[in-house]
Amino acid sequence: MATKKVAPRTLSGFMELLPAPQRQMERIMEILRETYSLYGFTPLDTPAIESSEVLLAKGGGETEKQIYRFQKGDADLSLRFDLTVPLAKYVALHYNDLTFPFRRYQIGKVYRGERAQRGRFREFYQADIDIIGDGKLSILNEAEIPAIIYKTFSALGLKRFRIRVNNRKILNGFYASLGLSGVAGDVMRTVDKLDKIGFEKVENLLTGELGIPAESAREILSFISIKGESQEILSQLENWRGRNETLDQGLEELNTVVKHLGNFGVPRENFAVDLTIARGLDYYTGTVYETMLLDHPEIGSVCSGGRYDNLAEYYTDKQLPGVGISIGLTRLFYVLGEQGLLNPDLPTAPADALILPMTEDLATAISLATELRENGIRTQLHCEEKKFKQKISYAGKLGIPYAIFLGEDEIREGVVACKDMSTGEQTKLDAKATISRIKTGLEARRKGAVIREHPETGDNSAQNG
Amino acid sequence: MATKKVAPRTLSGFMELLPAPQRQMERIMEILRETYSLYGFTPLDTPAIESSEVLLAKGGGETEKQIYRFQKGDADLSLRFDLTVPLAKYVALHYNDLTFPFRRYQIGKVYRGERAQRGRFREFYQADIDIIGDGKLSILNEAEIPAIIYKTFSALGLKRFRIRVNNRKILNGFYASLGLSGVAGDVMRTVDKLDKIGFEKVENLLTGELGIPAESAREILSFISIKGESQEILSQLENWRGRNETLDQGLEELNTVVKHLGNFGVPRENFAVDLTIARGLDYYTGTVYETMLLDHPEIGSVCSGGRYDNLAEYYTDKQLPGVGISIGLTRLFYVLGEQGLLNPDLPTAPADALILPMTEDLATAISLATELRENGIRTQLHCEEKKFKQKISYAGKLGIPYAIFLGEDEIREGVVACKDMSTGEQTKLDAKATISRIKTGLEARRKGAVIREHPETGDNSAQNG
Repeated sequence: MATKKVAPRTLSGFMELLPAPQRQMERIMEILRETYSLYGFTPLDTPAIESSEVLLAKGGGETEKQIYRFQKGDADLSLRFDLTVPLAKYVALHYNDLTFPFRRYQIGKVYRGERAQRGRFREFYQADIDIIGDGKLSILNEAEIPAIIYKTFSALGLKRFRIRVNNRKILNGFYASLGLSGVAGDVMRTVDKLDKIGFEKVENLLTGELGIPAESAREILSFISIKGESQEILSQLENWRGRNETLDQGLEELNTVVKHLGNFGVPRENFAVDLTIARGLDYYTGTVYETMLLDHPEIGSVCSGGRYDNLAEYYTDKQLPGVGISIGLTRLFYVLGEQGLLNPDLPTAPADALILPMTEDLATAISLATELRENGIRTQLHCEEKKFKQKISYAGKLGIPYAIFLGEDEIREGVVACKDMSTGEQTKLDAKATISRIKTGLEARRKGAVIREHPETGDNSAQNG
Repeated sequence: MATKKVAPRTLSGFMELLPAPQRQMERIMEILRETYSLYGFTPLDTPAIESSEVLLAKGGGETEKQIYRFQKGDADLSLRFDLTVPLAKYVALHYNDLTFPFRRYQIGKVYRGERAQRGRFREFYQADIDIIGDGKLSILNEAEIPAIIYKTFSALGLKRFRIRVNNRKILNGFYASLGLSGVAGDVMRTVDKLDKIGFEKVENLLTGELGIPAESAREILSFISIKGESQEILSQLENWRGRNETLDQGLEELNTVVKHLGNFGVPRENFAVDLTIARGLDYYTGTVYETMLLDHPEIGSVCSGGRYDNLAEYYTDKQLPGVGISIGLTRLFYVLGEQGLLNPDLPTAPADALILPMTEDLATAISLATELRENGIRTQLHCEEKKFKQKISYAGKLGIPYAIFLGEDEIREGVVACKDMSTGEQTKLDAKATISRIKTGLEARRKGAVIREHPETGDNSAQNG
């Protein structure tokens, strides 16, 4: 039967992992689910397709061209491009059934038809958490976010990362105090280039292109040059207190966030106040967050977000302030893989034990498989017509840690031959003792985190203490 | 700021759950992942979008009209309508990187633009497992599938279900022995109506519409009327042995499947040979499976599948036989909810403990939250400006089992006031003792399965033993 063939391919910009890296990805997702749950967030799942009218209610924006939008029958449909707009819809739609503050996490695929390039994805997972208040939301929620970021990345195995925090009220208040509210966006975009083009060029742009008085430009540059430990920055900021109400409020908030870090369990070295961080210009209104991997600044922020005042203004009159952060999981995973940071020692095999029956009658082998599984050992029976050597190499290729042989001798003696595939050590014990040996071995193998920083820069805590 | 509003809505035919049922859904997915892993299946994830050329390589078919297909730039794209075609593509594409037999599970959303109606979904989760061989695949894999189905539904809490099994070789061989291979499909579709239209009408259709000789029609009816315990059916089938090679091979296979059930841990009452089961007419070539809930036959099969000979014939010349089963998870979840079978006693709260600070200084409350979380207790701090009564009612509404009060007295005494929200019992213990109390309480609450059959029909095992 010669069927006409189509060359199999996966669309470019769509991540499709082989089994071993997929296991690593699943492990990362498990850790995110566990960590988010610890902080009282409930899992949510919303459709990948929404009515275009609803999804694009905000309209315009740079992303609109990237949206997968299509007609099905009479319906104008779009694939979601983030998890925030669907959350806004969800909260507005189900407002009466929800209890506020509403804390949810969502790990789901989103779609953006960007120009495909290395490390850029058109389908990618975002992992978001948000806390939504009804009318009001305490600053304590903003203070808690760094703890969640810290716990998440620590659980993944990272030590050398820093959560950078700023407060938009400080920036907005500062620019307002200079009479520059109208051009604050342009100023921030210009100032954002500081690292790239340097002090002088920024100053020229501010006074030239934006027409800002020289004195104000110098004040802007001196303001955003405030550097140092978080406490030092807060102290220096006191010099600006009293000029503008919004700025003062931002100072209060930032002080509150910093004050509670210790009680929230965030070490000093994983946190920094950074006045250059602005994030989405229109959207955020209070604390904003970025998270940098210290040894890989080129990646940019791996977890970002902030406080906003009005989640669902396109759907409801209800004032729904919130604070949220997002991890671009697919991109992060890709980068971790590229950088060799995924711990290769963690098991990625589909099974813990492979049973190789060596008799015609399979009854004993099957019963053993059933017993192992009842004891939580992931077990595969290998009953294919293959040579013994091929079956052993199957276990080796997949990295299955234990191979179990059941021949006539073993069955007669009521024992099980079990080989540790990494050490070669072979035991002949009864089923119960074999199960216990495997469980102990698996426990030892499960140690270690998903992400492994380079020993010379991170893992040796004595060196970095 | 009066923004123009768009009425928030979710597309019809798209499931969007409130937080409590979503927790139940997540729990079901966790159980599926755990169970599939126990049997040596590795998790897989493939894009929701594929090139139409690839996805529709098989072409035609009834589903084609239902497919979400659209243009993006120059690309002709489609959303996947099942997980089998993407698996075929995956295996063909990554053939050289895979080790066979290849066992994978995939739980993912698929899309079919069917006419929307109650209980039918356009976006729904399928939970699939497949075992793919390279060239050959042992019958033992087919024999193992009922064990996986049994374990899965048992883990979900069901007792009153039955896995129905047949073998397509028996059917095909039987029809061939009557010289009816050419009309076997029509015959099976007609015979399928037996339950609905009765014996006589089926006989008339066979002899009339299909022009089958009366004797053959009677033989067909007598064949598919073979009923009884699995062993009885197998015994009766021996009467047909020797007429046709394919039929004989099917008999061997079915005998092998039945023989090993006990060793695979499948109780007799959860299994039945059923000669009326055919499943997808062109696709399956060996053992086929259906799973019925005994108290809800109207739902139809909740887990189906079978053996096929050629997974990826549209993509590769490689012969890739396999066996797989699929659960229509979204529909199953919907039906379980409708039937009231989802255990309402399992916790669905976003947190295990809600901390209510009652002092200005929040340091102690935050440290306590951090300590609880470090001990694996899902904890939320409630620092909103609300009345005490409202905060308590927040815990009640969400079903958070423990509320913790921290007032000046407690802080001075170094204790924590902790209220069990269901019993009202309140303790004043130090943090360590409180954590221990909460953990014990949570353990007790976690008992019980996701699905709860009605006590009068299922849960009382003494009655049904």
